[in-house]
Amino acid sequence: MTLPHSQALTVTVGDVTRELPTVRVGSVGRVPLVEFIGDSEFTKAVAEAMLPLIPPGTEVLLTVVTNALPLAHELSDRSGLPYVCVRKKRRTYMQDPLIQDVPSMTLGTAETLWLDGPHAARLRGRRVAVVQDVIASGGTAQALARLVGRAGGTLSGYLAAFKQGDTSLPVAHLQELPQHL
Amino acid sequence: MTLPHSQALTVTVGDVTRELPTVRVGSVGRVPLVEFIGDSEFTKAVAEAMLPLIPPGTEVLLTVVTNALPLAHELSDRSGLPYVCVRKKRRTYMQDPLIQDVPSMTLGTAETLWLDGPHAARLRGRRVAVVQDVIASGGTAQALARLVGRAGGTLSGYLAAFKQGDTSLPVAHLQELPQHL
Repeated sequence: MTLPHSQALTVTVGDVTRELPTVRVGSVGRVPLVEFIGDSEFTKAVAEAMLPLIPPGTEVLLTVVTNALPLAHELSDRSGLPYVCVRKKRRTYMQDPLIQDVPSMTLGTAETLWLDGPHAARLRGRRVAVVQDVIASGGTAQALARLVGRAGGTLSGYLAAFKQGDTSLPVAHLQELPQHL
Repeated sequence: MTLPHSQALTVTVGDVTRELPTVRVGSVGRVPLVEFIGDSEFTKAVAEAMLPLIPPGTEVLLTVVTNALPLAHELSDRSGLPYVCVRKKRRTYMQDPLIQDVPSMTLGTAETLWLDGPHAARLRGRRVAVVQDVIASGGTAQALARLVGRAGGTLSGYLAAFKQGDTSLPVAHLQELPQHL
């Protein structure tokens, strides 16, 4: 159930300030919403600020659709590191994809991640950082780390623009967001 | 059904050359596959080349997930025009979304497009270009144009990196790709 946005949370990264809308999701309360899609200025500022947080030794960035996609593109461009993107549904053109379940979380919807075979091959023998827009419980981050290992890569660390919750994963991040207001 | 990639189609945009893999999809034959996701260098070259093709008078770019997303981000950044992105499934946080069917095409899967209310509001009273990675039958492009009208905007034109098929829509595009090989 979704009620109209109200209250806003102000976030500043570099010289870009955004009022994050908050939305009521289920019984959790009002959750601040970070949208990189449709906001290239904010995406660029966040990518620039994340550059020094890329885990040392990283050779490839691994992210997942959808909101983190323009961010990963920018981070790849600015760092010179290639990026690979995991999908949340099977595409008809995929070949020998790696299929990984994400353990179900608060909201109860289990997800499945799909990594196309040719892209999985780009992780083999490489040190790979998991990159996300927001890491909350860390369930998706851990599933991505599993994919790194299954593809023959080594995890260099976790990187997120925002941390929003009490994950026990060591996540390099710019700022912490409240889980709900 | 998907068989392994074979044959490649070479495409050069600006100073970036890529061998597009081809995949066998259904009974259509081998289809060249354009992937912007995971390739920031190619994405940038294509966005740069598309700049002069943006329809005159355009104030906002409208695109749709997923492959066109990094391209729209780059095009927005380079042109200074804001972009809005339509989703292919409902997100829990959406408010009063516009819901638009895409007429079913060759492969027979009808799709539904979702434009979140606050993003639809960004099209109101504006001249909006529909931007895609590849326009084939034009069905998705027409559904996006319908959304422009329903949101109170005016269509300034259609822009795609590649045209791949015999759509009757007037599509500004960089190159034409064969539908199958």
